[in-house]
Amino acid sequence: MQALILAGGSGTRFWPLSRKRSPKQLLALEGERSLLRDTLERLRPLVGPESVWVCTTEALGERVRAELPEVPPEQILLEPEGRNTAPAIGWSVRSMPEAARRGVVAVLPADHRVGDAAAFRDTLERAGRIVEREDRVMTLGVTPRWAETGYGYLELAPGAGPEGVRRVRRFVEKPTPENAARFVASGDYLWNAGIFLFRGATFLEVLARLQPELAAGLEEIAAAPGRRRELYARLPSDSIDYAVMERLDAISTLPLDCGWSDLGSWEALAEVLPPDAQGNTGRGEVVAVDARDNLLVSDSGTLAVLGVEGLVVVRTGDAVLVCPKARSQEVRKIIAELAARGRGDLL
Amino acid sequence: MQALILAGGSGTRFWPLSRKRSPKQLLALEGERSLLRDTLERLRPLVGPESVWVCTTEALGERVRAELPEVPPEQILLEPEGRNTAPAIGWSVRSMPEAARRGVVAVLPADHRVGDAAAFRDTLERAGRIVEREDRVMTLGVTPRWAETGYGYLELAPGAGPEGVRRVRRFVEKPTPENAARFVASGDYLWNAGIFLFRGATFLEVLARLQPELAAGLEEIAAAPGRRRELYARLPSDSIDYAVMERLDAISTLPLDCGWSDLGSWEALAEVLPPDAQGNTGRGEVVAVDARDNLLVSDSGTLAVLGVEGLVVVRTGDAVLVCPKARSQEVRKIIAELAARGRGDLL
Repeated sequence: MQALILAGGSGTRFWPLSRKRSPKQLLALEGERSLLRDTLERLRPLVGPESVWVCTTEALGERVRAELPEVPPEQILLEPEGRNTAPAIGWSVRSMPEAARRGVVAVLPADHRVGDAAAFRDTLERAGRIVEREDRVMTLGVTPRWAETGYGYLELAPGAGPEGVRRVRRFVEKPTPENAARFVASGDYLWNAGIFLFRGATFLEVLARLQPELAAGLEEIAAAPGRRRELYARLPSDSIDYAVMERLDAISTLPLDCGWSDLGSWEALAEVLPPDAQGNTGRGEVVAVDARDNLLVSDSGTLAVLGVEGLVVVRTGDAVLVCPKARSQEVRKIIAELAARGRGDLL
Repeated sequence: MQALILAGGSGTRFWPLSRKRSPKQLLALEGERSLLRDTLERLRPLVGPESVWVCTTEALGERVRAELPEVPPEQILLEPEGRNTAPAIGWSVRSMPEAARRGVVAVLPADHRVGDAAAFRDTLERAGRIVEREDRVMTLGVTPRWAETGYGYLELAPGAGPEGVRRVRRFVEKPTPENAARFVASGDYLWNAGIFLFRGATFLEVLARLQPELAAGLEEIAAAPGRRRELYARLPSDSIDYAVMERLDAISTLPLDCGWSDLGSWEALAEVLPPDAQGNTGRGEVVAVDARDNLLVSDSGTLAVLGVEGLVVVRTGDAVLVCPKARSQEVRKIIAELAARGRGDLL
């Protein structure tokens, strides 16, 4: 099995810790290792570094190579610019040697959290065997643990096949709270975790059928690698869900139960960190007096809080963020204000 | 008139901005100028720098001299160690040449706020003339504007003398909220602002009568300046209120109405700073999104808040403080914790 790790994200959700040059996948949000490094580590021994491919951007290439020295440098692919996941996956698969493409490719985001790596590998391995045997396109959907409104869902068709395989009836966008509650109660929905498996060659055939313009563009790049930059910029920008997965008649899934989180916000991070006796989570030099249920992160200097509850407080060398946990997904409003002020140095 | 500015304080109430080496009186809390510098400026033209004396500690001497270059260096007196206000005032007055001591001395804290400097000078000048003419010990008490429980009060005897002079019946410690409300409603109380006027020679006579041990100690130092360090350490440590003022039979006062605040906490500072349209106050590079009534201070880096209300957030190069305004006087609990962790570098 080849693993293709998508590591081109430039998310701003973990500002002020995440920056353009240091996006989420390069941060050690939960421990000592970056999320990207964690993604590599959790694949062993199922997929060794020699079978790992990483798709990232030119701007991040140096940092990604330094983070993953075991991965052969020619397998770290640098997009000239971010064009969303469909071009990234298509170009990466097309860049693999034919022998690799004939086998199973697992597409994995670089910036998610998995609590139970063994359970993750076990499900991934089972899915890989099914794909190899039956040449299906599969996704791993996460068994929902609460009525999350921040994730997309996979609606399952009734009835399970052998080995617990389910058919995906449709992809569902982020639901309302009422729908999310109904989804979880029904047992017929999984969280869409952005994990896909297919034979590489099969995926390229699917792409040629469903997204002929994209597929043709990829062939052009393969034929004229010197014009890669110019040609890549012309590829239609789309997500893999929208461009391919939602258009497939037959996509299968295995439910994944491994303490997964997309770590989509400071609040999501707070939920997976071990709390102290007062419910505070975080790291760095922190003093918390009569303070409860806060996420307190300092990667530079001392952070002192007193008498506050439910806050996110993050300190870096050049910035501080303070907001209620429940509003931490609105950090983009701060980014927008900083951008409007011309403070690109902080982004 | 001579002005004696007491600038030896080592308060921790404005941590993390205030530090041992950079205490409150050296901070520019409200504008461009330090509180100490403001204290000097507001005395002009009533008392020029040539008639200003400053009592501070050896540790702060260099910074105080740099802050007040117009004050003759020999009039900046350096306590070998802080022994509270009674020794500081006694030693300072005893250090003045006899000609200066024969005149009026006004004792002024270095770290208070005065909104209306002209009104302050006017009252001070009137008090000075009364002291000169009648050789009284006077204090300026502040007309209370609310039922503050953080200040001591002066209870007035009934009836006003010529020029509005009142007699102080007694000094009252910080009151309960009920008593504070009663004090303010009665009109018979003033806030104790720690401002005193007397003829220097008269004060030394009073000291000899009420605190003979302290007075004797001061004479010893005057006789053997080389043993100053050793002798100063032996002076009884007391506040001027307790050691002298509360024991005097006849102390007079003029009410002072000049936008005075002792700036005793971050909350007190927030009350005197000009708010923006959302009620936020502060200074430095601040981004506030949907945030109200916060005090936001950054003297290093960017401070971004979102969706919070009524907080104090202060960022320095090495620390951050977050607490509700109403609890900002508890910052000493953080100091205590940092001290317990051996983080003297942050104090």
